[in-house]
Amino acid sequence: MIQPKLDRIPAGIGSLADFEALAHDRLDPGAFAYLMGGAGDGITRDRNRQSLDGLELVPRVLRSLAGGSTACTLFGSHLPHPVLMAPVGFLTVLHEAGEAGAAQAADATDTPMVLSTLSSTPLEEVAAAAPGPKWFQLYVQADRGLTRALVQRAEAAGYRAIVITADAPISGVRDAERRAGFRLPPTVTAANLPGGRALVAGQADRVEDPLGDILREAPTWEDVRSVCAMTRLPVLVKGILAPGDAETAIQSGAAGVVVSNHGGRTLDTAIPSIRALPRVAEAVAGRVPVLMDGGILRGTDVLKALALGATAVLVGRAWATAFAAAGPLGAAWALKVLVEEFAVAMALTGCRTLADIRPDLLETPRP
Amino acid sequence: MIQPKLDRIPAGIGSLADFEALAHDRLDPGAFAYLMGGAGDGITRDRNRQSLDGLELVPRVLRSLAGGSTACTLFGSHLPHPVLMAPVGFLTVLHEAGEAGAAQAADATDTPMVLSTLSSTPLEEVAAAAPGPKWFQLYVQADRGLTRALVQRAEAAGYRAIVITADAPISGVRDAERRAGFRLPPTVTAANLPGGRALVAGQADRVEDPLGDILREAPTWEDVRSVCAMTRLPVLVKGILAPGDAETAIQSGAAGVVVSNHGGRTLDTAIPSIRALPRVAEAVAGRVPVLMDGGILRGTDVLKALALGATAVLVGRAWATAFAAAGPLGAAWALKVLVEEFAVAMALTGCRTLADIRPDLLETPRP
Amino acid sequence: MIQPKLDRIPAGIGSLADFEALAHDRLDPGAFAYLMGGAGDGITRDRNRQSLDGLELVPRVLRSLAGGSTACTLFGSHLPHPVLMAPVGFLTVLHEAGEAGAAQAADATDTPMVLSTLSSTPLEEVAAAAPGPKWFQLYVQADRGLTRALVQRAEAAGYRAIVITADAPISGVRDAERRAGFRLPPTVTAANLPGGRALVAGQADRVEDPLGDILREAPTWEDVRSVCAMTRLPVLVKGILAPGDAETAIQSGAAGVVVSNHGGRTLDTAIPSIRALPRVAEAVAGRVPVLMDGGILRGTDVLKALALGATAVLVGRAWATAFAAAGPLGAAWALKVLVEEFAVAMALTGCRTLADIRPDLLETPRP
Amino acid sequence: MIQPKLDRIPAGIGSLADFEALAHDRLDPGAFAYLMGGAGDGITRDRNRQSLDGLELVPRVLRSLAGGSTACTLFGSHLPHPVLMAPVGFLTVLHEAGEAGAAQAADATDTPMVLSTLSSTPLEEVAAAAPGPKWFQLYVQADRGLTRALVQRAEAAGYRAIVITADAPISGVRDAERRAGFRLPPTVTAANLPGGRALVAGQADRVEDPLGDILREAPTWEDVRSVCAMTRLPVLVKGILAPGDAETAIQSGAAGVVVSNHGGRTLDTAIPSIRALPRVAEAVAGRVPVLMDGGILRGTDVLKALALGATAVLVGRAWATAFAAAGPLGAAWALKVLVEEFAVAMALTGCRTLADIRPDLLETPRP
Repeated sequence: MIQPKLDRIPAGIGSLADFEALAHDRLDPGAFAYLMGGAGDGITRDRNRQSLDGLELVPRVLRSLAGGSTACTLFGSHLPHPVLMAPVGFLTVLHEAGEAGAAQAADATDTPMVLSTLSSTPLEEVAAAAPGPKWFQLYVQADRGLTRALVQRAEAAGYRAIVITADAPISGVRDAERRAGFRLPPTVTAANLPGGRALVAGQADRVEDPLGDILREAPTWEDVRSVCAMTRLPVLVKGILAPGDAETAIQSGAAGVVVSNHGGRTLDTAIPSIRALPRVAEAVAGRVPVLMDGGILRGTDVLKALALGATAVLVGRAWATAFAAAGPLGAAWALKVLVEEFAVAMALTGCRTLADIRPDLLETPRP
Repeated sequence: MIQPKLDRIPAGIGSLADFEALAHDRLDPGAFAYLMGGAGDGITRDRNRQSLDGLELVPRVLRSLAGGSTACTLFGSHLPHPVLMAPVGFLTVLHEAGEAGAAQAADATDTPMVLSTLSSTPLEEVAAAAPGPKWFQLYVQADRGLTRALVQRAEAAGYRAIVITADAPISGVRDAERRAGFRLPPTVTAANLPGGRALVAGQADRVEDPLGDILREAPTWEDVRSVCAMTRLPVLVKGILAPGDAETAIQSGAAGVVVSNHGGRTLDTAIPSIRALPRVAEAVAGRVPVLMDGGILRGTDVLKALALGATAVLVGRAWATAFAAAGPLGAAWALKVLVEEFAVAMALTGCRTLADIRPDLLETPRP
Repeated sequence: MIQPKLDRIPAGIGSLADFEALAHDRLDPGAFAYLMGGAGDGITRDRNRQSLDGLELVPRVLRSLAGGSTACTLFGSHLPHPVLMAPVGFLTVLHEAGEAGAAQAADATDTPMVLSTLSSTPLEEVAAAAPGPKWFQLYVQADRGLTRALVQRAEAAGYRAIVITADAPISGVRDAERRAGFRLPPTVTAANLPGGRALVAGQADRVEDPLGDILREAPTWEDVRSVCAMTRLPVLVKGILAPGDAETAIQSGAAGVVVSNHGGRTLDTAIPSIRALPRVAEAVAGRVPVLMDGGILRGTDVLKALALGATAVLVGRAWATAFAAAGPLGAAWALKVLVEEFAVAMALTGCRTLADIRPDLLETPRP
Repeated sequence: MIQPKLDRIPAGIGSLADFEALAHDRLDPGAFAYLMGGAGDGITRDRNRQSLDGLELVPRVLRSLAGGSTACTLFGSHLPHPVLMAPVGFLTVLHEAGEAGAAQAADATDTPMVLSTLSSTPLEEVAAAAPGPKWFQLYVQADRGLTRALVQRAEAAGYRAIVITADAPISGVRDAERRAGFRLPPTVTAANLPGGRALVAGQADRVEDPLGDILREAPTWEDVRSVCAMTRLPVLVKGILAPGDAETAIQSGAAGVVVSNHGGRTLDTAIPSIRALPRVAEAVAGRVPVLMDGGILRGTDVLKALALGATAVLVGRAWATAFAAAGPLGAAWALKVLVEEFAVAMALTGCRTLADIRPDLLETPRP
């Protein structure tokens, strides 16, 4: 039986991971598979976490930490901490508060939110519901005019960056959702798109000819150049795992890259994000910010990503499980605790500011 | 209690692996041991899968995929995809539709079938039941005249290649079958052989002097040369794991080699196929096609084998479990989904055609 | 239901590890979490043990062992064995015999005890209860005058060394204690501190601004220099994992260092102690003794630590679990068996004295 | 409830490992701990097996195997296979047929038996019960005159080699036996020793001063030289893991060495035998035979040991579990199947004789 959503954080909660079980009991099996499922056998999803746990820290002690801070600067904006909310589609599947509620959790924790193209709430309404900094995640649409319209609407609504998702030209092998028989509830639509219709991962029936019709319209680097030309906002490319693709992104005008395997939701056995990060960071060589997502669940994970070259991290399931269990309150709790843990990890490794977080904090800098 | 065979694919099926449990419930324990058991402790059988899962992909994004295709060419024939059905003996043990039914599943999915010498249906009947391309797997018989007759019958019946199995001069240590007390049902015979009699793996009682009588008649490289001389068909040697043996196969006239450990059914702790593949491919250096089998269960597995030098792959348990559970319909479903997954994996790694599948897709090219 | 404490060692006990279950049944869940819990997910706590188990010994045989001994010298004192009791706070949480009882177990086994600043018994009373050699573990207090008073009291009471804990400027992420709702019982106080009040790990509510107020008062290397100047006792710095910090400790006047990750209780995924040890020992290069704690539970663990450069080891949970189950008798049993196992390990590896314990006893000298 | 011993091999038995469960049900817990227990946490016992399983074979195919054989020569004697029965003490604890019954199983399978000093039957009676080739395992006695008498009795009774156990100068940490409360039954004595008294592993109460009294009498290399001088038989030293000790053994007159960690029964976390073997074999460089024991349970294990430099292997638990369950019949069955599996492994890797078993059969020659 599905339990009612929580209206407070239970006493026994120790860390963000504890919310997975709470979300499990408060979502129908399909929605839970949508939230937690990985592509295929979930190997990349699991290895995202395992690879982070596998990295070992070599702390420095007794350094002065007076005046320490987790603050950073990104695209000219000051941020109190280097954690952003990764785009998660159709948030009303997880909690009735939807994208507007998630945006309020973001504001409550000074966390920039990256809103998905596949929002169940129009991007303008989300912006209106919470005034904090927001970015817009862009799925390039088969209709390139529609793509342009989305970018223009986001810019007009005050979104501060465009994040083009590059790693999902086609839905992955979403066995978990298929087994659970996940379908979007009829009340949930892609509110940013005409008619509310989207071809969503796990949603379509099996594709008959994957290398045929659909991929003829798939986004390419030309789309990156085109989006860069149509907006004054910084444009990031999300889903970079190969160093050469980071180079191409910069050459195509990208103002940043996001190392990501889509949370293990598209291509199973893709390399874990944290293992791809140092090589991408090396190729980028500081020319643009390198963000990263995939498995971040602990403050030490944030520290490790920064030590390996990330400017900031995005987190998805880390807050979305708490959101599914306890709505905006849960999401805010999760983000707050994650940042607190990060500050503790800085203190315990002798890092006063983000500039002190260097590769030699890790026993194995190139895992 | 053994459940009745399925006549449709159940709704909850997510991937090929899900059929193992369905087959388990629809076969008697002996037949299930025959289907799934590995030699000894099943270590090589399991490592075939684990080694594939252990390989990590580094996808490329935003490349143009328009006009993409999974097509390939093998021995002058155009194939819509690089997946073949590996030989599996005595298919009527698994499903009453037998080899003819399996051949129809092959045709339905444009998959060449490699028929086993130990077919429970005469090779001519199988060819008549389904007109698609077929190869013939050859166990060299103690009576070399009988060997010649088998080759001639296969050629006459339209089979397009001969695959000599080299890695089973003697039955392996088939503990699983022995524990389950597997015996061929009396109605099942080796229909290609005189009197329907064959010395089948797991079937004979313990061999008293394995290095004595039996091995005196075991096949040698001389038999490869002899078979090459007796037919115009391309002859492949299956069961190659050592690079030097690939060289000898080519010197002996083989038109191709199959990297294989017999699905882990003969020598336990033999090296996993995917780990042996790159060295064999390096030794072959493109002179003949290199095929591979052993553990392929996912589209990404096909991609990995091709990235490491395979021209095509053979799959056995991947369709045979579905065949055991749901007959020809199951086998066809499994093969279709495997090829679809392969196409999705190509799309998600930026491969438009098979020529784009290169070793640098893998984090560790030499696993 | 919580079982009564044991007044004898049960017949079935095989080794120190067996006491964990006995302690589990004799402590309330919060106290057990305080005893056994690690920071975060307990990864470092577990890896401390796993890394020791992973080291493999290459014994030498048939050497003369006549006149062998486990004796060693530390800061000019003769010790019958190189094992010390690590500081454990608030022992009355574990057993009513408290620190005085633990000190008597130390004396019974000729083991120097390191008393925690956070003792629930005044340091003078502990010294009076058992005359054996004792060291004092120092948490630098926000009030530096109080720090000085603690050092002077310890020196006056006959403690023979000061061990400054460097790796806990702030409480770690103590999820296990938080989940179990651990709170110090009202009868337990920090008896060495004015008003019995201490900010104890896991005890405080979530810290709001970890890099702010609290850390302004955190200890630094200046405190090490200051403590060294205020006492004639040898001063050790505990919590060293980075070789560079060992160098700084020596430069700051430390007479020894303790390689430690605080039993995995502060920073999860910190490097296991035994893996950090050889590099620290190399940096120290024999200038001062290098001690080590973290996961020691077997005589072979002691042997391995010494082979990798430790002069002596500290053990915490190894005796504290037995203390929690069976009081001073349990602690004494555990220490006695640990030393016996160590002697057996020396004999079985051909080591007559500690000088024979060299890195080549280990298959992988640098794990 | 303890089940009666078997008088036939059950139908469901697939391999030697299956006997462990049968023995478990037919021995009291103490005797089972004596049979299967390892020192400490059983890590070395388990790793003996895991290291063998971890080695991967690269078979060669289609070589001529006509006239193949498992025969070998050892100390001038022809043996039909390179497997010996390792010494196991007090066999009447396992089965009433005792050492005489085990010796008959040895004869039935042409297996040389190494009789333990701690036999529960006098060595002369064992020799009389079964005429096949036998070696005598020697525990050097505190009374060196008694040592000499044992050697002379063995030589007089027709034993063909003396195997000095070097790796047990003191009983290991036998937690499993201690937990199970194992005690030798009163009817079982050390029949080769005056008064039937022996200080048996796991039997003595905790040793008070392991590096003291007992070790004053422990065997040294001088004893090896002394035994070599007192007999015309070849003398082997058993328990060698360090290459340097192999050199010393040869310098001391040994005619062979046995790479062994005593089945993991003395020093836990000692290096697995198969991992120590190649380095010892390299040091010995063919000057004397190198035997090996530890974890051999499969024909492929024998093959791997020979590939890494062993001339022959000893097996203990491999037959002793079967002996405990089914007496001499069980032991004979186990030895017969092991040799059959070895022959099959030779055939499947293309080895006609033992000379063909070379390191390149292994994927990782130096594991």
